[in-house]
Amino acid sequence: MGELLGVAVLGAGHMGADHIRRLDRVVSGARVVAVADPDRDRAEEAVGGIEGVLVNDDPLAALDAPGVRAVLIASPGPAHEEALLAAFDRGLPVLCEKPMVPESDGALRVVEAEARLGRRLAQIGFMRRYDAGYLELKSLLDGGRLGRPLMLHCTHRNVSSPPGFTSAMLVNSSVSHEIDAARWLLGQELTAVTVLRPASSSGAPEGLQDPQFVLFETERGALVDVEVFVNCGFGYQVRCEAVGEAGSARIGEEHGTVVTARGAASAPVPQDYLVRFAAAYDREVQSWVDATRRGRVTGPSAWDGYASSVAAEAGVRSLENGGRVGITLAARPALYAENGGDGAR
Amino acid sequence: MGELLGVAVLGAGHMGADHIRRLDRVVSGARVVAVADPDRDRAEEAVGGIEGVLVNDDPLAALDAPGVRAVLIASPGPAHEEALLAAFDRGLPVLCEKPMVPESDGALRVVEAEARLGRRLAQIGFMRRYDAGYLELKSLLDGGRLGRPLMLHCTHRNVSSPPGFTSAMLVNSSVSHEIDAARWLLGQELTAVTVLRPASSSGAPEGLQDPQFVLFETERGALVDVEVFVNCGFGYQVRCEAVGEAGSARIGEEHGTVVTARGAASAPVPQDYLVRFAAAYDREVQSWVDATRRGRVTGPSAWDGYASSVAAEAGVRSLENGGRVGITLAARPALYAENGGDGAR
Amino acid sequence: MGELLGVAVLGAGHMGADHIRRLDRVVSGARVVAVADPDRDRAEEAVGGIEGVLVNDDPLAALDAPGVRAVLIASPGPAHEEALLAAFDRGLPVLCEKPMVPESDGALRVVEAEARLGRRLAQIGFMRRYDAGYLELKSLLDGGRLGRPLMLHCTHRNVSSPPGFTSAMLVNSSVSHEIDAARWLLGQELTAVTVLRPASSSGAPEGLQDPQFVLFETERGALVDVEVFVNCGFGYQVRCEAVGEAGSARIGEEHGTVVTARGAASAPVPQDYLVRFAAAYDREVQSWVDATRRGRVTGPSAWDGYASSVAAEAGVRSLENGGRVGITLAARPALYAENGGDGAR
Amino acid sequence: MGELLGVAVLGAGHMGADHIRRLDRVVSGARVVAVADPDRDRAEEAVGGIEGVLVNDDPLAALDAPGVRAVLIASPGPAHEEALLAAFDRGLPVLCEKPMVPESDGALRVVEAEARLGRRLAQIGFMRRYDAGYLELKSLLDGGRLGRPLMLHCTHRNVSSPPGFTSAMLVNSSVSHEIDAARWLLGQELTAVTVLRPASSSGAPEGLQDPQFVLFETERGALVDVEVFVNCGFGYQVRCEAVGEAGSARIGEEHGTVVTARGAASAPVPQDYLVRFAAAYDREVQSWVDATRRGRVTGPSAWDGYASSVAAEAGVRSLENGGRVGITLAARPALYAENGGDGAR
Repeated sequence: MGELLGVAVLGAGHMGADHIRRLDRVVSGARVVAVADPDRDRAEEAVGGIEGVLVNDDPLAALDAPGVRAVLIASPGPAHEEALLAAFDRGLPVLCEKPMVPESDGALRVVEAEARLGRRLAQIGFMRRYDAGYLELKSLLDGGRLGRPLMLHCTHRNVSSPPGFTSAMLVNSSVSHEIDAARWLLGQELTAVTVLRPASSSGAPEGLQDPQFVLFETERGALVDVEVFVNCGFGYQVRCEAVGEAGSARIGEEHGTVVTARGAASAPVPQDYLVRFAAAYDREVQSWVDATRRGRVTGPSAWDGYASSVAAEAGVRSLENGGRVGITLAARPALYAENGGDGAR
Repeated sequence: MGELLGVAVLGAGHMGADHIRRLDRVVSGARVVAVADPDRDRAEEAVGGIEGVLVNDDPLAALDAPGVRAVLIASPGPAHEEALLAAFDRGLPVLCEKPMVPESDGALRVVEAEARLGRRLAQIGFMRRYDAGYLELKSLLDGGRLGRPLMLHCTHRNVSSPPGFTSAMLVNSSVSHEIDAARWLLGQELTAVTVLRPASSSGAPEGLQDPQFVLFETERGALVDVEVFVNCGFGYQVRCEAVGEAGSARIGEEHGTVVTARGAASAPVPQDYLVRFAAAYDREVQSWVDATRRGRVTGPSAWDGYASSVAAEAGVRSLENGGRVGITLAARPALYAENGGDGAR
Repeated sequence: MGELLGVAVLGAGHMGADHIRRLDRVVSGARVVAVADPDRDRAEEAVGGIEGVLVNDDPLAALDAPGVRAVLIASPGPAHEEALLAAFDRGLPVLCEKPMVPESDGALRVVEAEARLGRRLAQIGFMRRYDAGYLELKSLLDGGRLGRPLMLHCTHRNVSSPPGFTSAMLVNSSVSHEIDAARWLLGQELTAVTVLRPASSSGAPEGLQDPQFVLFETERGALVDVEVFVNCGFGYQVRCEAVGEAGSARIGEEHGTVVTARGAASAPVPQDYLVRFAAAYDREVQSWVDATRRGRVTGPSAWDGYASSVAAEAGVRSLENGGRVGITLAARPALYAENGGDGAR
Repeated sequence: MGELLGVAVLGAGHMGADHIRRLDRVVSGARVVAVADPDRDRAEEAVGGIEGVLVNDDPLAALDAPGVRAVLIASPGPAHEEALLAAFDRGLPVLCEKPMVPESDGALRVVEAEARLGRRLAQIGFMRRYDAGYLELKSLLDGGRLGRPLMLHCTHRNVSSPPGFTSAMLVNSSVSHEIDAARWLLGQELTAVTVLRPASSSGAPEGLQDPQFVLFETERGALVDVEVFVNCGFGYQVRCEAVGEAGSARIGEEHGTVVTARGAASAPVPQDYLVRFAAAYDREVQSWVDATRRGRVTGPSAWDGYASSVAAEAGVRSLENGGRVGITLAARPALYAENGGDGAR
């Protein structure tokens, strides 16, 4: 497919370093040509021995480095809006980690900027759309085998939350994956959210409301419930059951190797999303590289990033004030017509 | 264990006929000595060729038949209160099918009557407490292996609803099983209920709100959610996942024989509660017979029947009016002290 | 169904005591009227407080006790032949624990004696035919869903072997269950056996060949392999996969409650056959009581007991001498025509 | 990691074309620079639009093409020996599809040639060593969690066999995967083989012995049984259970999405090895590319290819003549010392 795609990576933290490695070692057809991070040492370390990479502490300089034909944004969320708009200015295709922009106002500005351009440049990093299980569930729903979808039951559990994790982050960081997955699986926008507060686990840090139970309603009456429990202690577990008029389908059950020893048959539960979703991350970035090299933009759009922000904000309001909170989106620009937002395959 | 326990069975419908067969053919230590049903032919048919059974159309006459030492009530719910009080008057132990009494006022009168007697005579037919899966879940919760319970996720699906099934009956008939199971598993009373209305399935009869999603809160902050879907089409499926601070446990997953043929590995889903819970019904009635012959009363109490009625009534109000409805119980008589209401084993 | 069936139980050891309890407490329609055991104290203890039971140290006296209408033989194998012939002399229906008679010569004498009577009196205790999983597998095979059967893969594992267990007993005691199950599932006689000797586990007692891998051939070319491993350490596990021309089916996989905690999803493995097959034992004895009260004999026949002995003897020869050993049966008496030997339901 | 690895691919059939696509689109760090196939049109088609590839009908010319730094051999088995020796002459690292060389004489010549070189150049295409399930099983065995291994129970099923597939090919083509997997998992050489012939399925072509049941013995007394059934009709299914002194572990169970509809819970069975093992193929080739670029050779060695040939030949003799056939290997050159033959990770 001709020349390798030169990529500038913004942000060399946990996620950014993993993407640099992925572009260099896992994904075909791409090469890292520039990396920017305010912490230049961290950027150098993430680059490791890869030849020909320009390391910088200024993201805009990285965008303008020689050979840059696409941008991967893995910097902290508050830096995304500026980086996205800069990429748009330069006509560079971009893969932007979630959240696209933390606040829905900023997210809407990105949508409007891209709509003004009149063509899509941004793919948002909702990588569950690239997970084999979710892809199969999507295919079952779209193929009609389950009938019209009525409910999604979702579980999202982490071993423990990182320092500084707040009650609001269970909604706007953890559940944002389910927000996008529900919109994508159902092909419907969300219209309201209610966050319930069960007793907090004694395993959660003082003051953290964990677990939470989040209910979304959709425009055609489906109900989505999410247990989010980020200090469950036993593993990283993401499950989803779609219930339709004709049947149900579940993904994310424990499986793989079954060991029988000392009175029990057991299967390991992964401890980490990078393990559970390693293949999805690879597939996501490979899809983006392949599409970009062909001059196309597919995958989750800026509209998906915006819709997720709005729903997450409403969720936080429900968490804080109690009760049901409506979710209202701005008018959807023609650029993001329904049949254009998918393309995960 | 000496003489067989002579049992009068009130009601010879679907459930009553099944219990007559069970007492005669499955359960040891008991024999049917009287059967009453307003439809005498139906009663005769249910008795079949069993020798020495007095058939009557008057339930009170059946209670007074020679040899009656215990009563099994399987008549329609509205007849239960009178039958229970008559059994109490005669000092007869009774196994009463659920609902104990449909309205909570009547249920409370039964509780008060038994409390006045000062000893338990009634066991209520919440047979899930006798299912191997629920017993194991109870044992895991009581043994502390899962830590303090935070949530129960329940699924209750039937192939199709019988004629005349109303939206309220999803709550006060179907979900009443989950109401009792949640109280028993958690050892906590319920304090509020919210019934949500997803889009109804086109497979449900016109006008029926099916599925429903029911949320209960408990006195120590646990959250119980129940998907009830009585026209799911594919099978009878009862599942429950308990989520605690230290782990989760699920029962009711598909299992048993796995057939691999024509591109799929599959396991059958039972189509009927009599199939799924056959062993639980047997164990329930056997437990009652064994205890009664020893002069004891164990199992779900009249208090459990009353508490279930109150929660179901609140659920129906939430279904009809929307929003969260509090659940308030009368003072608990000393007869039903917490450590006396279990005894399922 | 009229009067209770009076049963004499011969043998009050582990299995006999369990059957006495079962007849008294679990099975309807029967009562224990006589128990015989050379150790009279053991017999008294097994009877416990059951009223009206004659306890004796002479099995023949027990058969002649008043009210005896049927016999359950649970004495040691070498005592079975005499007891069976005595029951035949008295025209008493009998449920005889496996092995029917340890040596095939004696087993054949039992078959011939019953054939001379011209009617079946004996049901042999191959209780796997009453296990829900095996019944479902039989139904799948007979219903043709798997096509013509080509192979059975069997696993038979115990936590540890009792004292005095010999290498031959893995074949003629443990595998005798698979011998009968294979004959019953396939509806074919076995024609040859080969016993292979993998390295013995260091968990097995000194000198015991454990595990063994046993191969049976059948008259229509099916192959049956059995891993028998009686010191596997982790649990009691009985599995069977039938492979047919159109599909395969497996029973005995781990299932039931799934617990997720500390990095693994696990399901318990039973530690004991009385736990794993409790319901099958109940169903077996209930079937026998029901049939006997109706004057019928169903279930595994003396022919099945004989055929099992012959196959087990051949297996022991293969174990001791190596190589393949043919299995040849005597002519099958008309009494045991193929359509008469089943009736497990 | 510097310059891309230039690869010559020999053979542009089914497997070769798939590897060309993989090197170009999936694997990072490599590029295809030459392709040789006697059918030049087929080679052109496999190359598709990839730029800068020299297409040739002469394999030796392809090896000498500019930029070739490594060779992937995917030509038919009989052409492998010459190609391997030519690669050795040129000092080129090579990834050679299985079978390395169909006859064990030729396989031994390859081993001897590489041993004379004094360094490893060849990695053999036993891709199960790169499957996530097998890797986990290997890790469990090596980590000691299962104790000393005693038995492997293997299942290898295909939907249907291609035209021209012979009874011998079930052993030397299909089972050759299990031959290598058993040697690798156990870390032991095989010492004998017995092939048993159950009744053939009516779904198999006339004259084909299908299924077969193959037994291997190993140098330290483990037993390996393999059901190979290449016209099972229902799917592609590869399973392996390792039974050790302390526990057992199974891989290849059905899992993934569980769909509940119309009375059954079902999970799809893949129909094809390219689906089931897609990730393993990717991982295999990526490992080879990575190692080669670092000047290292890891993965299955020529010795593994040779040992597999010898075992397969013995298996075919057992199939044809019946009975047990010993497996004897030539002396193992020092180059292939036990601790050097692994390196799958």
